[in-house]
Amino acid sequence: MNLDFLKKAEAAKPKLTVKTHTVKGGQVLAERETVVYDFGTHLVGYPKIWFSSVGAHYDAPALIKVRFCETAQELEEDTSSYNGWISKGWIQDEIIHLDVLPCAYAFKRRFAFRYIKAEVMATSPKYRLRIDKVSVKSVTSAPERIPVCGSSKREKAIDKVALKTLSECMQYEFEDGPKRDMRLWLGDLRLQALTNYQTYRHNDLVKRCLYLFAATADGEGNISQCVFTKPDVAPDDQSLFDYSLLFIPTLYDYFKETGDRQTINDLLPLAEKQIEIAKKRFDGDLIKDCDKLGWCFLDWSLDLNKQAGAQAVYIYAEKTLAKLLKELHRDASPYEKDVASKSAKAIEGFYDKERGLFVSGKQRQISYATNVWFVLAEVFKAKENALLLDRLQACKEAIKPITPYMMHHYVQALADSGNIGEARKVIGEYWGGMTERGADTFWELFDPEDPDQSPYGGKAVNSYCHAWSCTPAYFFRKYFAEV
Amino acid sequence: MNLDFLKKAEAAKPKLTVKTHTVKGGQVLAERETVVYDFGTHLVGYPKIWFSSVGAHYDAPALIKVRFCETAQELEEDTSSYNGWISKGWIQDEIIHLDVLPCAYAFKRRFAFRYIKAEVMATSPKYRLRIDKVSVKSVTSAPERIPVCGSSKREKAIDKVALKTLSECMQYEFEDGPKRDMRLWLGDLRLQALTNYQTYRHNDLVKRCLYLFAATADGEGNISQCVFTKPDVAPDDQSLFDYSLLFIPTLYDYFKETGDRQTINDLLPLAEKQIEIAKKRFDGDLIKDCDKLGWCFLDWSLDLNKQAGAQAVYIYAEKTLAKLLKELHRDASPYEKDVASKSAKAIEGFYDKERGLFVSGKQRQISYATNVWFVLAEVFKAKENALLLDRLQACKEAIKPITPYMMHHYVQALADSGNIGEARKVIGEYWGGMTERGADTFWELFDPEDPDQSPYGGKAVNSYCHAWSCTPAYFFRKYFAEV
Repeated sequence: MNLDFLKKAEAAKPKLTVKTHTVKGGQVLAERETVVYDFGTHLVGYPKIWFSSVGAHYDAPALIKVRFCETAQELEEDTSSYNGWISKGWIQDEIIHLDVLPCAYAFKRRFAFRYIKAEVMATSPKYRLRIDKVSVKSVTSAPERIPVCGSSKREKAIDKVALKTLSECMQYEFEDGPKRDMRLWLGDLRLQALTNYQTYRHNDLVKRCLYLFAATADGEGNISQCVFTKPDVAPDDQSLFDYSLLFIPTLYDYFKETGDRQTINDLLPLAEKQIEIAKKRFDGDLIKDCDKLGWCFLDWSLDLNKQAGAQAVYIYAEKTLAKLLKELHRDASPYEKDVASKSAKAIEGFYDKERGLFVSGKQRQISYATNVWFVLAEVFKAKENALLLDRLQACKEAIKPITPYMMHHYVQALADSGNIGEARKVIGEYWGGMTERGADTFWELFDPEDPDQSPYGGKAVNSYCHAWSCTPAYFFRKYFAEV
Repeated sequence: MNLDFLKKAEAAKPKLTVKTHTVKGGQVLAERETVVYDFGTHLVGYPKIWFSSVGAHYDAPALIKVRFCETAQELEEDTSSYNGWISKGWIQDEIIHLDVLPCAYAFKRRFAFRYIKAEVMATSPKYRLRIDKVSVKSVTSAPERIPVCGSSKREKAIDKVALKTLSECMQYEFEDGPKRDMRLWLGDLRLQALTNYQTYRHNDLVKRCLYLFAATADGEGNISQCVFTKPDVAPDDQSLFDYSLLFIPTLYDYFKETGDRQTINDLLPLAEKQIEIAKKRFDGDLIKDCDKLGWCFLDWSLDLNKQAGAQAVYIYAEKTLAKLLKELHRDASPYEKDVASKSAKAIEGFYDKERGLFVSGKQRQISYATNVWFVLAEVFKAKENALLLDRLQACKEAIKPITPYMMHHYVQALADSGNIGEARKVIGEYWGGMTERGADTFWELFDPEDPDQSPYGGKAVNSYCHAWSCTPAYFFRKYFAEV
């Protein structure tokens, strides 16, 4: 652990703004009856419920099941049937006893929700339960709300939800999702930081997160995919090929935004290290394929072959490193040479000239992930890339994005290749698909053709406020400036 | 509410002694695995469990079900199937989330148990849960343990369990049971006080409880069957015919033990009031029958007819009042006259000369409850009573005691009529039946012929440490003095 970096991370730890939201109660519930409270929008915070008894003096503990739901749909779900591979512990269901009535029950855990559903599992024949008041102390490290933009009702709705999504994920760190994992992930951080620069401009929070990753890198410079901060700062034991490389553009974007030379001086060696480490995955200039699930992320799709996309991310990151070095008036030529040979080899190895698309793996799989990353890596020029994206759109078999994370990169690729109109259309359709389904915050996963998707074996653990989906607020301000 | 009495009750509120009990952990549990910790004896207190993770850094909340069991048998019970008429909230099952590991989870609720069973409902594929330590801060207002008595291994075992039972129920009040209802009940109080005088001699706790009942009596002098103390002191909305009358002997016993004239002066008018109130249930000198369940307790038997027993309790209480008045050099003659006429009428109305037993109700039901109370009321002389009890024992159809509460009165009746040997034998058999089944504390209910009995529709809510069963410690010291 680099204690100097850790100290710098801790020095940039933000204070949280606490705000109280209250809904009126008054409902009287008998055993097995339920009530739902709607706070009107998504909140992250600490709930408190005021209970009393109606009838004779309470003479037995009341037993209550309290569910915290991010979406209205979750209210009706049978969470007990969830049997997926990630922890049931993420399901925001609590079973509580009330020994004394009246009482104010303050939950010690933080929840992410819009709705609170309370079900009386037991009272006694002598009393019914009354819920007198429900309140939430919401927390965020985002500054006060900023004005919404967008040129249509739909765009304004999307922007509002995007801003909300980002602010809900801004806590002591940029969290991936305030319901799950409540944790700093590198891939999410990069998109949050980009959106933050266009919106809340809480740049010290980006700095803190960069230092947290740097502090927890291992002796060889491997950056973890995510960082734990409780009970102490600690790295996860896994790295992702693409996430580690994306440390470079995250650092570059931060420098472009802030001009903070001290941070660059501290963290540049680690950024360079990422190229050195990633290079080991190559046979000459061609990246090795790997069937280990999760070695490289790209998108939350189990079918996706990652080989070609990983090479594209490498080129993208190395190009960014070269740009950064040049801005610092340092020698970038070894990286530029490497970019050139890796790009040439990528075209040779992955580009299917007949189809005009990049393919990946032995099965020569076509996917948005692969092609989008080659566009972002600017292996071809903008005009060629625009045509490539047209062909991609027309390709029925191409594996589509499943996460807003991958969808962000698709929109970025459209913007980079000059097709702002299509970029905007995609945002309207994809993110608009969520707002039209009533989203208060954007979701971790959204497949318009299969909205009940979950890679976890059950929707009950999906996150419905997820950082990586906040980028419409970035695109609106950076690319659709006339709005 | 009589605030003067309340003040006196509060002034006598005891301090609790806190003691820490620890069992070593070290068990590593995967999802669905369980572990049981045995504290070696029954405890009342606040548990704390130290958890940590084994494997990679914890990356999801752990979900644990923790059950607190008074008996080993409960460990195997399916509590989720309980569907009886009193609150499921009494079942000592907790479902907790652990968001940060390692952690020490301190339960805020008080539990009564010997065993703690923890079941891991969820971790994540990356870690298993380790329980490092389990401790309990036990609480009681009983003084340090006192020497066990008894002339055999069995009697010593019974006495030890009886002492433990009483001390576990001695908290800020004499509670009926530390699992359920955790509350001051008049019928229990009387037996606890009797045992207390022979053992812990915490007489201020008796005083406090007498004042709590007196403070919460209504304007007409009706004493509640039980008193709530949380959040504030308050009476229950029900009175029991026999319990209210038993305020008189409870006060009398307290006076005999302490000579505390101040308390007698305060509470005697209320004691007299009980006779006045009870008298209203009579048609002339014969008590009215009542089919309302629970108007008079006597025993936890749904089949029991209470008419005759209630009249016996009345006579017993009124006789005690007369004794008390005489000791205070006051005029007891109106009560003595009433006792005489009520006794005569009872014999006329309830005594079946042919069978030589008291009967109750239209069905002329024979029960231990009815006959025992007539023995205690000394409607006949001791020798006659001894014969009556012999006939009772021989009567196959007599409804037997189901609670240790009723069993106490049977043993008292045997002792009062001079049959110490039989009293002792009954204790050995009945209470010994519980110790032989592994009881650390005596139970609320014990029917040797049907040990799985519950009047609540399910054993899961039965109390296995119940005040009214502590009286062997009283009998051993008061009647079997040679032991």
